[in-house]
Amino acid sequence: MELTEQLREELAQEIAEGQRALYQLSEFSAADAAAVRRRAMEKFSQARGTDLVLDATGHYSFDAEKAATQHCENFAGVAQVPQGYVGPLRVRGEAVGDELLFVPLATTEGALLASVNRGARAITKSGGALVMVEDVGMTRAPAFKTSGIEQTKELLAWLDANQDRVRKEAEGTSRFLRLEEIIPRTLGTTVLLRFRFTSGDAMGMNMATIACDRVVNNLIQPETGVQCIALSGNFCTDKKASSVNWQLGRGKRVIAEVVLPQEVLSNTLKTRADKLVEVQLRKNLHGSIAAGSMGFNAQFANALAALFLSTGQDLAHVVEGAMGLTHFEERPDGAVYASVYMPDLPVAAVGGGTGLATQREALELLGVVVDPDRPGIAARRMAEIAGATVLAGELSLMSAFTSSDLARAHERLGRAQKPTAG
Amino acid sequence: MELTEQLREELAQEIAEGQRALYQLSEFSAADAAAVRRRAMEKFSQARGTDLVLDATGHYSFDAEKAATQHCENFAGVAQVPQGYVGPLRVRGEAVGDELLFVPLATTEGALLASVNRGARAITKSGGALVMVEDVGMTRAPAFKTSGIEQTKELLAWLDANQDRVRKEAEGTSRFLRLEEIIPRTLGTTVLLRFRFTSGDAMGMNMATIACDRVVNNLIQPETGVQCIALSGNFCTDKKASSVNWQLGRGKRVIAEVVLPQEVLSNTLKTRADKLVEVQLRKNLHGSIAAGSMGFNAQFANALAALFLSTGQDLAHVVEGAMGLTHFEERPDGAVYASVYMPDLPVAAVGGGTGLATQREALELLGVVVDPDRPGIAARRMAEIAGATVLAGELSLMSAFTSSDLARAHERLGRAQKPTAG
Amino acid sequence: MELTEQLREELAQEIAEGQRALYQLSEFSAADAAAVRRRAMEKFSQARGTDLVLDATGHYSFDAEKAATQHCENFAGVAQVPQGYVGPLRVRGEAVGDELLFVPLATTEGALLASVNRGARAITKSGGALVMVEDVGMTRAPAFKTSGIEQTKELLAWLDANQDRVRKEAEGTSRFLRLEEIIPRTLGTTVLLRFRFTSGDAMGMNMATIACDRVVNNLIQPETGVQCIALSGNFCTDKKASSVNWQLGRGKRVIAEVVLPQEVLSNTLKTRADKLVEVQLRKNLHGSIAAGSMGFNAQFANALAALFLSTGQDLAHVVEGAMGLTHFEERPDGAVYASVYMPDLPVAAVGGGTGLATQREALELLGVVVDPDRPGIAARRMAEIAGATVLAGELSLMSAFTSSDLARAHERLGRAQKPTAG
Amino acid sequence: MELTEQLREELAQEIAEGQRALYQLSEFSAADAAAVRRRAMEKFSQARGTDLVLDATGHYSFDAEKAATQHCENFAGVAQVPQGYVGPLRVRGEAVGDELLFVPLATTEGALLASVNRGARAITKSGGALVMVEDVGMTRAPAFKTSGIEQTKELLAWLDANQDRVRKEAEGTSRFLRLEEIIPRTLGTTVLLRFRFTSGDAMGMNMATIACDRVVNNLIQPETGVQCIALSGNFCTDKKASSVNWQLGRGKRVIAEVVLPQEVLSNTLKTRADKLVEVQLRKNLHGSIAAGSMGFNAQFANALAALFLSTGQDLAHVVEGAMGLTHFEERPDGAVYASVYMPDLPVAAVGGGTGLATQREALELLGVVVDPDRPGIAARRMAEIAGATVLAGELSLMSAFTSSDLARAHERLGRAQKPTAG
Repeated sequence: MELTEQLREELAQEIAEGQRALYQLSEFSAADAAAVRRRAMEKFSQARGTDLVLDATGHYSFDAEKAATQHCENFAGVAQVPQGYVGPLRVRGEAVGDELLFVPLATTEGALLASVNRGARAITKSGGALVMVEDVGMTRAPAFKTSGIEQTKELLAWLDANQDRVRKEAEGTSRFLRLEEIIPRTLGTTVLLRFRFTSGDAMGMNMATIACDRVVNNLIQPETGVQCIALSGNFCTDKKASSVNWQLGRGKRVIAEVVLPQEVLSNTLKTRADKLVEVQLRKNLHGSIAAGSMGFNAQFANALAALFLSTGQDLAHVVEGAMGLTHFEERPDGAVYASVYMPDLPVAAVGGGTGLATQREALELLGVVVDPDRPGIAARRMAEIAGATVLAGELSLMSAFTSSDLARAHERLGRAQKPTAG
Repeated sequence: MELTEQLREELAQEIAEGQRALYQLSEFSAADAAAVRRRAMEKFSQARGTDLVLDATGHYSFDAEKAATQHCENFAGVAQVPQGYVGPLRVRGEAVGDELLFVPLATTEGALLASVNRGARAITKSGGALVMVEDVGMTRAPAFKTSGIEQTKELLAWLDANQDRVRKEAEGTSRFLRLEEIIPRTLGTTVLLRFRFTSGDAMGMNMATIACDRVVNNLIQPETGVQCIALSGNFCTDKKASSVNWQLGRGKRVIAEVVLPQEVLSNTLKTRADKLVEVQLRKNLHGSIAAGSMGFNAQFANALAALFLSTGQDLAHVVEGAMGLTHFEERPDGAVYASVYMPDLPVAAVGGGTGLATQREALELLGVVVDPDRPGIAARRMAEIAGATVLAGELSLMSAFTSSDLARAHERLGRAQKPTAG
Repeated sequence: MELTEQLREELAQEIAEGQRALYQLSEFSAADAAAVRRRAMEKFSQARGTDLVLDATGHYSFDAEKAATQHCENFAGVAQVPQGYVGPLRVRGEAVGDELLFVPLATTEGALLASVNRGARAITKSGGALVMVEDVGMTRAPAFKTSGIEQTKELLAWLDANQDRVRKEAEGTSRFLRLEEIIPRTLGTTVLLRFRFTSGDAMGMNMATIACDRVVNNLIQPETGVQCIALSGNFCTDKKASSVNWQLGRGKRVIAEVVLPQEVLSNTLKTRADKLVEVQLRKNLHGSIAAGSMGFNAQFANALAALFLSTGQDLAHVVEGAMGLTHFEERPDGAVYASVYMPDLPVAAVGGGTGLATQREALELLGVVVDPDRPGIAARRMAEIAGATVLAGELSLMSAFTSSDLARAHERLGRAQKPTAG
Repeated sequence: MELTEQLREELAQEIAEGQRALYQLSEFSAADAAAVRRRAMEKFSQARGTDLVLDATGHYSFDAEKAATQHCENFAGVAQVPQGYVGPLRVRGEAVGDELLFVPLATTEGALLASVNRGARAITKSGGALVMVEDVGMTRAPAFKTSGIEQTKELLAWLDANQDRVRKEAEGTSRFLRLEEIIPRTLGTTVLLRFRFTSGDAMGMNMATIACDRVVNNLIQPETGVQCIALSGNFCTDKKASSVNWQLGRGKRVIAEVVLPQEVLSNTLKTRADKLVEVQLRKNLHGSIAAGSMGFNAQFANALAALFLSTGQDLAHVVEGAMGLTHFEERPDGAVYASVYMPDLPVAAVGGGTGLATQREALELLGVVVDPDRPGIAARRMAEIAGATVLAGELSLMSAFTSSDLARAHERLGRAQKPTAG
């Protein structure tokens, strides 16, 4: 249906006054409906005495129809975040091989890119970051309620006896999905079944949920009579810091490392090996222990959030990715061994936000492009790049802590005074 | 300096070939430098055989100079994420009073807005969400190294004796900053001093860091001789799940609640009180206990990430905000009491990404605008809205779990099949 | 060598004055050496002006030689703790079958036995506790230091390729030991290998340590060149609350359950199903969540400590055993389902303190006696009894919380006023 | 009533057959009732075909009446554990001054005393352990249920307005009790009030419970109408590892330290500073981080359990005491700084098991005797000694890990082969 200016005003007025719901615009194109919604918000604000103009919000360059149907109901426009690049960053790993890369980061936080860029320079000068990635896979854990020990035993026995059928049912929902393991956990009458899948180049949460739904509704409930209380029972654990993920991993489990010679420490990072070891002990070990934190690092979250935003990863997964341990170790001749350990990094090369316009451009720049002949390799590449990028961030930030005039120097830069402090 | 096309190509080529650093474009306007950087990336990719065109990335509508100097070094363009609205959502609280609001959310995750919108409808029909906000404030904890018990005692005694001077030094760095408390923690020879500040409408991390820097470098180190090892000692704790924040809070500590009558449960949320209580027990309590998680909720992180992105909050703070407890309690006549507890929600009405174009529009829509006569009230309002929004998300998602055909229904919707599962 | 009174006085004087070490009495019988040590302490105290007489300490009835050589260097006497019985307690399980039992408990804490006894009565009247035991086994995790990712990969590859040799080496140290699994965990350059063994009726810590020593020193170090830094790397985890044990279990993993009819609740426990469910929610779930505790129970530790002491288990293992979840669920007709989940309960029927005189008597009373034809069955029986005993304690204590006059009633009993509160 | 042999047999038979409860012997002396109970157990065992003789169990030397009425209902005898001494151990602290001490330890675990003794020797040779004790105090946290935010606010406002009355009511229950603080925590409709008391020389759990009962039942419930669901709401947290105790402390918070010169490391501990630092990093830091443990130490629990048993402390409190951090730091000339941090050590000089015969003797040996003029000083002394003893244990065990032939050497000692491994 065509949207005239008059019609737009009328519809917007109705929404602003609560006579029409935001989603009741299905007869219009996504772009037109978005325009109506923005106009409705302006009118709504005017009624409260605010002179709101939603100008920037309407300024997008992705496909509105796709955005409205696949990503964002009640679609109205865009959130824009500045994006820049760091690099060249040399990365070595099974998927990436050995490449120089420029890494896109989107953030509102001044000093972040400058800091990661310095770390990238240090890594590249030292021969690159070596990254090891384990494809733990995506997990989903439905919660069941039994009548007690006897029924719990029956349920677990059924599961043992029907592994092949369960696998077939689960894997039948997607040709990229593979059921790796089911870990049961029983607390009283609550039984949690943690399904672990690998899912090729997708992050896999959606595929895992659908597969679990099939297994639960087509097999477990009808054949055992045990009721599923929630398809996700939080033993997954999705987007919450958790010890089960810390222990067993989720998504990709990543270690990235580099040995920095003394001259790189001195010239690029303005620091020394012994100072880095000292900050590591007091801050990342003692401090995090005092805090009862699952993050024994200076600041994984900032670099990850910026990379996740630019490349269309699920932003809420930064919650899991922020867990991990940084490590520094003095080596002969004043060199330092540095590494980051990230047990829970869910990333994708396809699906979710990876198909949006700016995100797709960022992924192409990184070479994170699905190769039909090597399913999963692009997601692994993404994880290797993420590991190297986080390592770059840690190197620079930790070095900054060893320089006592950090905050002051930052402050002199005027507004960009924010130390990206962990 | 003016940027001709030829010059752009030359500079881009230099960057692509590693002969020029990304930041070595300071003689150009931010927009021109961004164009060079994008072009450099295209050339870099071409050299690898990829036909990259950074088109969407160049399509932004914020102030490039501001973006480049305040938010994002090596500025090159934009990351665009689709944005929509949910509402009207009725919110009640000390800052917001009692208002109907439309809440902007930016996400790539299909089904999220539809879900939160349904929860908002349920809340509004039930008389609105009541939100209580405690302004815990922002924390920063430098780490010191002493020679042992004797020097630790001296340091702590000095701190006791010099409270007023410390406060004056700290508060002298900003007229909005107020030092509320210093909590010391000693482990062996490591002493952590957790400074807690309130900071008006700012999130305060930057202000807290600068204030701590002053206190450490102008007072503590020179007067006690105790060395500061890191200005942030991770006992803060910034952007990592931590028990110290769970215990003591950080940013705003928020509780949002609503009592949903049976008819709203039945008509809007398609559920029942007893079913919600059962899912709460098995998933959010038993499941999270089994997982060793600090998130006893279905999915705070998704709603928060979408709200933080649209309103210019620090995305990495979602890591902290994802901690918390949802609660359901059956009331007479089939009603249900529902609440969310969020001990650690750092939000701002000013600073960080709040000044960017689309983010500023979103904040204006929410009425989150600084009032010079009432410093801090806009940030409180932001926290109240965040609490109500997260509550809306929990209501809808938890209700979906009580409906066994969830995943299938979602799937029928085609691509938007992803249950926003927690 | 014979000990005359004069010699005793002389030797004691030498020890008291620091001229002889406590252990330098190897030429005497254990009983005589103990007498010298007690006398030395008396003299040492006299020199400080204290009139100490170590009379009770000398009053023991176990074999002094065995005590001195197997249990307690510098042996000097005994610590005596009052012991009583609770029961009859009906227990059902794979090892115990279905029996009525009296359970010995040793404690200094008034009200504990009365409380557990009441719970035992309630269980027995309700048909007994059903207990499920999984023999997870004992773990030991040596810590290694590699040079980085490459060497770590080599170490793990070696381990994969040499599983059979490792198993043979480990199991060759004891005919009761069986290596079930090795879980590797790599953080930076630290590699932890968590060996998990089953060990028949022994608790297994000692056997596991010796087996790991052999594997490390005879195979891993010489063949891989990777250095073992500590034979126990705390990823075991021994005698510390830990999420790895919470997740993966240690010793025995136990669930004990009972359904209590309304009349038992009312007559024996003076409570109601709905009240128990309410206390469970507020205290064991919300309270422990607020506390960040791994103990979602009222008080496992008290009953366990008393049972471990009476039966010669390792007292420090109460640290691990205190982790766990209690669960209450209302059933039709006012009945309540109750259970305890204990993921980490290391117990033994042989070895450690089980061979001492009073401890052996207590184990015999419980029927925890090794059966050579069914290795491991006695330790399982011990775990089943422990589960039922802890359940009894929870039932009584949780019921007491539902009765508001608890503390006052206790107080009226005079000194025995201490509520065994959790 | 006098107990003839015939009567004993009759009563025992009745108990063994379930016709008489264990506690139905109130007309007899404690010793006689104990004899009946032991005989009942023998008869009960005979009926199952076991020839049980409870001989050692009857061999005690404490006051049976006191044991039966104050410590152990259904009193029947004793649990005996071998006891020995370590020392001399030099301890320095505010309470202990500077003294050489012999420390009694009771354990069934071979090698423990030898190990602690070696650590004590190293400490004493190095000038003694310096111990700092903070009397955090005992906590108890009742759980309340409100109707929501409004009533919660009223409750907290009432508490603010009635602080003096609450204090008076609480402190009126004991002249040694002092209310230091009340920390409220609200999650949904659950309000937890964590009362913190200091309690002189008593451990204080009993006193805190009675005081809370008074405040709750005489003031809070009647005046606010808010219902207390459980007098202990687990936010205390008693006898469970918990982050609230880790953060805020409980009982005594203790740091004990020593600087060990190279010759002591070399001669007494057979180790080197750099090796200790390496084991500390890989085991107590990385290993415990990998394990998600709250115990960043080698083995606090063993030494504590042995000391708690010998001195009549509450054994279940070892659960809390096992939390903590060990620290090693290399100093010039090959010396090492070593310390233990124990945030949660509940100890007493009076009350609980401290009045029993062997326990009283042990406390007198330690000089832990209440001084009416200095209330609390004896409990502080106890905490200082505990800190120094745990430090001794850590020094020796950590040194043993640096010596690769540890397990083998132990094994050669025959039965005493158990490395007291952490």
